[in-house]
Amino acid sequence: MTAIPSSRADCAALDRADPLAPLRARFRLPPGVIYLDGNSLGALPADTPTRVADAVEQQWGRQLIRSWNSAGWVDLPQRIGAKIATLIGADADEVVAADATSVNLFKLLSAALQMRAQRRVILSEAGNFPTDLYVAQGLIAQLGGRHELKLVERDALPAAIDDSVAVVMLTQVDYRTGSRLDLPAITHAAHAAGALMLWDLAHSAGAFPVELNAAGADFAVGCGYKYLNGGPGAPAFLYVARRHQAAFAQPLSGWMGHAAPFAFETGYRPATGVARYLCGTPPVLSMVALEAGLDTLLDAAPLGGLAALWRKALALTALFGERAAALGAAHGLHRVTPLSDAQRGSQISFSLPDGDAAYAVVQALIERGVIGDFRAPDILRFGFAPAYLRYVDAWDAAEQLGAVLADGVWRDERFRTRQAVT
Amino acid sequence: MTAIPSSRADCAALDRADPLAPLRARFRLPPGVIYLDGNSLGALPADTPTRVADAVEQQWGRQLIRSWNSAGWVDLPQRIGAKIATLIGADADEVVAADATSVNLFKLLSAALQMRAQRRVILSEAGNFPTDLYVAQGLIAQLGGRHELKLVERDALPAAIDDSVAVVMLTQVDYRTGSRLDLPAITHAAHAAGALMLWDLAHSAGAFPVELNAAGADFAVGCGYKYLNGGPGAPAFLYVARRHQAAFAQPLSGWMGHAAPFAFETGYRPATGVARYLCGTPPVLSMVALEAGLDTLLDAAPLGGLAALWRKALALTALFGERAAALGAAHGLHRVTPLSDAQRGSQISFSLPDGDAAYAVVQALIERGVIGDFRAPDILRFGFAPAYLRYVDAWDAAEQLGAVLADGVWRDERFRTRQAVT
Repeated sequence: MTAIPSSRADCAALDRADPLAPLRARFRLPPGVIYLDGNSLGALPADTPTRVADAVEQQWGRQLIRSWNSAGWVDLPQRIGAKIATLIGADADEVVAADATSVNLFKLLSAALQMRAQRRVILSEAGNFPTDLYVAQGLIAQLGGRHELKLVERDALPAAIDDSVAVVMLTQVDYRTGSRLDLPAITHAAHAAGALMLWDLAHSAGAFPVELNAAGADFAVGCGYKYLNGGPGAPAFLYVARRHQAAFAQPLSGWMGHAAPFAFETGYRPATGVARYLCGTPPVLSMVALEAGLDTLLDAAPLGGLAALWRKALALTALFGERAAALGAAHGLHRVTPLSDAQRGSQISFSLPDGDAAYAVVQALIERGVIGDFRAPDILRFGFAPAYLRYVDAWDAAEQLGAVLADGVWRDERFRTRQAVT
Repeated sequence: MTAIPSSRADCAALDRADPLAPLRARFRLPPGVIYLDGNSLGALPADTPTRVADAVEQQWGRQLIRSWNSAGWVDLPQRIGAKIATLIGADADEVVAADATSVNLFKLLSAALQMRAQRRVILSEAGNFPTDLYVAQGLIAQLGGRHELKLVERDALPAAIDDSVAVVMLTQVDYRTGSRLDLPAITHAAHAAGALMLWDLAHSAGAFPVELNAAGADFAVGCGYKYLNGGPGAPAFLYVARRHQAAFAQPLSGWMGHAAPFAFETGYRPATGVARYLCGTPPVLSMVALEAGLDTLLDAAPLGGLAALWRKALALTALFGERAAALGAAHGLHRVTPLSDAQRGSQISFSLPDGDAAYAVVQALIERGVIGDFRAPDILRFGFAPAYLRYVDAWDAAEQLGAVLADGVWRDERFRTRQAVT
């Protein structure tokens, strides 16, 4: 762990010496904002407006239908998938960008249950992101209730992986606590019990290097709009280890997954390559934005790429976590993110004894330009995207959190009205 | 049927007198192009670039995560759905924009089979758009093969609707021939046999007034990127008659369909309203473009709206169909679209005896700026979006088709290379 700076001046010095500092200019950040919610919606890359405008005005407006070929729209899912593959330790032909994470989870869980037809359990943890659990529940209900979604606490996971388990479905980084699972170890445990392993990389992809193939993972999904900076509701991605590709079958067998979509055959024949994971026509404008976000991240390669970004993220989160904890302890602020570098993702979360207070403190911080988010029931969550955050941002954010807690401004009524999206 | 103009001058006169003519300026059309492929990808509305740029630069770039509330991103599926509802004879709370057409078909077919659990047949026609058939096939395989996708020829449909049929799934306008089904009559026949009725409105929505509720339809899907001008791969929509809403259950139970998505509960509880048809996070940028396209169409209301547009479409297609048939008859051009106004959609399709010739003729036309498309095996397809097409366009397109057939330029090798997307 890096030594933690002990003053704002030290932070400014770190920023001046930071080889990754130029990346910040590749994003458009509003003035007066410290954005600690890139783990919910990544910031806008500077290249994205031009690339989306080009897709709208030139590709769509002028070339019209011809752009499916001339602008390569038809290849977007595979082209973007190949770029994501470099961030998650997969090969180019194992990943496609498509649909929403929830839809992709459905595809993978369906395929997994079919591949382990003699087993009846989907194993996950109670704290997994809810949509993962909801999709498993929907699939199980559809299949007539022969299967079971077994939820255990994180600590009980290893013991729960037995020969009843068809597939272990886990999100590597807990969206609330920021706790990070040991991906290779759990993958190994799943395989040792004959189960398949499905990783949700929503809070992993683009945050730190993931090594899916090195760990022998079977399936993964992930999110385009967090650390990949693909824009609001950006298409998600899915990964299928090449060894499963030929046998992979899933019920969302739309025409983009067909071996010959434009032959307009009556019967479904899955494509031989990764296209078989696709379903319907992709949302091109959102795909274009996702590709621009990815390219921005991939342009960091000469500066050390994701490994260097992750080292900086660890330093930023260590700094913010320690400083905020020190300032907030007297006000009941409790750190829920593990201290160990090996056990956490790119976020720091705290709780407060009163969930309403946690909500209000986050709103008061947002009013002061420090954007984090609240997660029910009582979590204050702060995500760190090192491509556009500075050491002084981490310092200042902690100071602001300390100030809001100390001056009690959050008790004001205006911070207590809950909105539709928190 | 309107009298068909017999000269280009007559067409120009019709354009001058056309109260819908000002709508053309609401679109950005490239110079030198007659765009007869709006049934595959609608043209770019003039308002769309600004609205998408605002969503990218202001909503995302400056407001960041706050736009889920402040820019109403969270309401986009319902807000857009309510607008689409006005075009298809549904109520605002019966339609949402979401996912791809194929994914939405899966939701509706799943729900339909569950609602008719004693029946085993999905009835469709062999010529239905392939993805509809593929999705049904995928669902049936997933459910263990207890069901059957029964495909009959269009003429045999009425007789095939019997008490084995759980759901009749049909696309109202045939994508190849442009033949239009009698939606009320077939819906009635389905109900008389105790079956549910699912309409694919891909080539209907935004082309002519559809009256789903008047016909008593149960379910529908449709496409955002054709006559709704929502942009490439725009999100699709789905309709569920209100009487089915409470009982509606489908396996793609993602978090956006939950009664309280931000309560992060462990168990799925479907939303009470139309949100229950949603699955994952919507692709916001593509949604914004779809809403801009819809608003452009809805702005035609003072000029008579969809009813007036449809009258013009019938006149344009009658003109093009008659003129092109006359010019092409000597070259084997055969009209496959019905002559009767009551039996066709907003397109005119021809076949040629040689499928390779059909493909090459379409490519030669595109080189001359008349953009239609080819549909395997032998169809030349020309779609008419009356919001941006003029009578002179229909005239000139027919002349060009006649000229290409007459001068044989399509025989050139460069028109024969098939591309990925046709």
